[in-house]
Amino acid sequence: MNEVRCWVNGEPGARVNVAERALQYGDGLFETIRVRYARPEHLGRHLQRLSAGCERLKFPPVDWALVRQELEELAGRQEDAVLKYILGRGEGGRGYQAGSELKVTRIACIHRLPHWPSNPDQNGVRTRICTTPLAIQPLLAGLKHLNRLEQVMARSEWDDQDVAEGFMLDPDRQLIEGTMSNVFIVAGGELLTPELSQCGVAGVMRSVILDLANTLGFKARIQPLTLDDLKAGQEVFICNSLAGIWPVVHVAGIGEFGIGRITRQMQMAAQAGANEDSGNWYKT
Amino acid sequence: MNEVRCWVNGEPGARVNVAERALQYGDGLFETIRVRYARPEHLGRHLQRLSAGCERLKFPPVDWALVRQELEELAGRQEDAVLKYILGRGEGGRGYQAGSELKVTRIACIHRLPHWPSNPDQNGVRTRICTTPLAIQPLLAGLKHLNRLEQVMARSEWDDQDVAEGFMLDPDRQLIEGTMSNVFIVAGGELLTPELSQCGVAGVMRSVILDLANTLGFKARIQPLTLDDLKAGQEVFICNSLAGIWPVVHVAGIGEFGIGRITRQMQMAAQAGANEDSGNWYKT
Repeated sequence: MNEVRCWVNGEPGARVNVAERALQYGDGLFETIRVRYARPEHLGRHLQRLSAGCERLKFPPVDWALVRQELEELAGRQEDAVLKYILGRGEGGRGYQAGSELKVTRIACIHRLPHWPSNPDQNGVRTRICTTPLAIQPLLAGLKHLNRLEQVMARSEWDDQDVAEGFMLDPDRQLIEGTMSNVFIVAGGELLTPELSQCGVAGVMRSVILDLANTLGFKARIQPLTLDDLKAGQEVFICNSLAGIWPVVHVAGIGEFGIGRITRQMQMAAQAGANEDSGNWYKT
Repeated sequence: MNEVRCWVNGEPGARVNVAERALQYGDGLFETIRVRYARPEHLGRHLQRLSAGCERLKFPPVDWALVRQELEELAGRQEDAVLKYILGRGEGGRGYQAGSELKVTRIACIHRLPHWPSNPDQNGVRTRICTTPLAIQPLLAGLKHLNRLEQVMARSEWDDQDVAEGFMLDPDRQLIEGTMSNVFIVAGGELLTPELSQCGVAGVMRSVILDLANTLGFKARIQPLTLDDLKAGQEVFICNSLAGIWPVVHVAGIGEFGIGRITRQMQMAAQAGANEDSGNWYKT
């Protein structure tokens, strides 16, 4: 029942060569895609981020039509699932030097959708502040790359199953993100979310929400935010491609939050718009 | 001729499961060990760093007697080689959360010793300064972990085969290390090497040199260093477990350096002491 099905470079199988740079150096990128109604949700945005990441990391050329086809085909095999997709820079190179002859490795795995018995989207979640800092690294900021030890360390700070997420700060104690989510604060009727040019992952659901806010007529602002801003928020929610939007009802050491009207409105809008943006961006 | 032989958890083979966290998150550590006279050089120091890394990253328990046995056995199959050894946290976990039931994955590969036609240990090497910064992350500083995108990016800054190494700075423009080496500056008869509590990898050869300097009666100091300190150096050398010690004769934009008496003395001492420290530290 708990089976995971994987494909490496289009072939069924769950094994990669140890020479793959994704393993040797974390030299790769990934996307975690929600499959809904047998389609990869927000596929266009996922591909756009992946492609921006490949460019930033100076990856060898990627056949984006093939990637899109592969993702659509794999998603088509089930109604509801998680599709995790890794692009590794390829096998080999001379130490850190990649060389130009590498061939990007595509790893796709389909997982069952996680089961959240507490209905976090309805009831909200309890959270905490992590002590593991996010390092300042503008060259990698925003990307969903495979160097994720900071998130692993942060997530190891708690075991309590009632705590769904931990927030991470940069060394100047700016609020950046959750270990696996982005964060929004509602204040004065506006949506605020941290600026991510120095660290953090610019999530696909975050970009969806920013666009939806615009459509719905809310002012949304990307700006530096602190724990004081969090404390002062009337509503707080977190988001990612899998969970969608989860209201935050508690941040340990900061306070309690109600589940507000704007959070509910964003949840409904996000659900409604889930399948609307899988356009052919890569063809333009 | 260019064959690489690998073992995964003691079994011959070069394939790992895609669920391995070393691949998914760079959640692992590695050592690059020089095999000389069929023995893993400085094995005790390599194991010590690996074990310190496992502790810092809160790894599941590791059978260190088995690891040592494996490394000695694999090294015993050739006179002269490179033994790269990866410890991944294991397969699975729930997202970033590792869980306590994981079993560490051991990946060992034997490579041929790289061929350096220019005799860099005799003739010295040309180097440059990289623009890719090393992020400040005290939680990971010093460790040889698998999150190495910064080194990959830095190494991608040049193609010129005459340039052997690039130096990396932290965001405050402190000199930290080379992409694949540590650096020493000789000034006023003293050996200076950068402090690595905020970023960088604390190399095994670096620790060998610090101890040798002590034995030979040189003062060696670990301290913050800048490009001005580099420029003012009478001698400069870089080191790692594979190359040993390479004199630096040129740093682009900084200046030329002679190959000095202290560098030569350290080279000779390092070579002589290569096989002296494979003690049974793990038994104590």
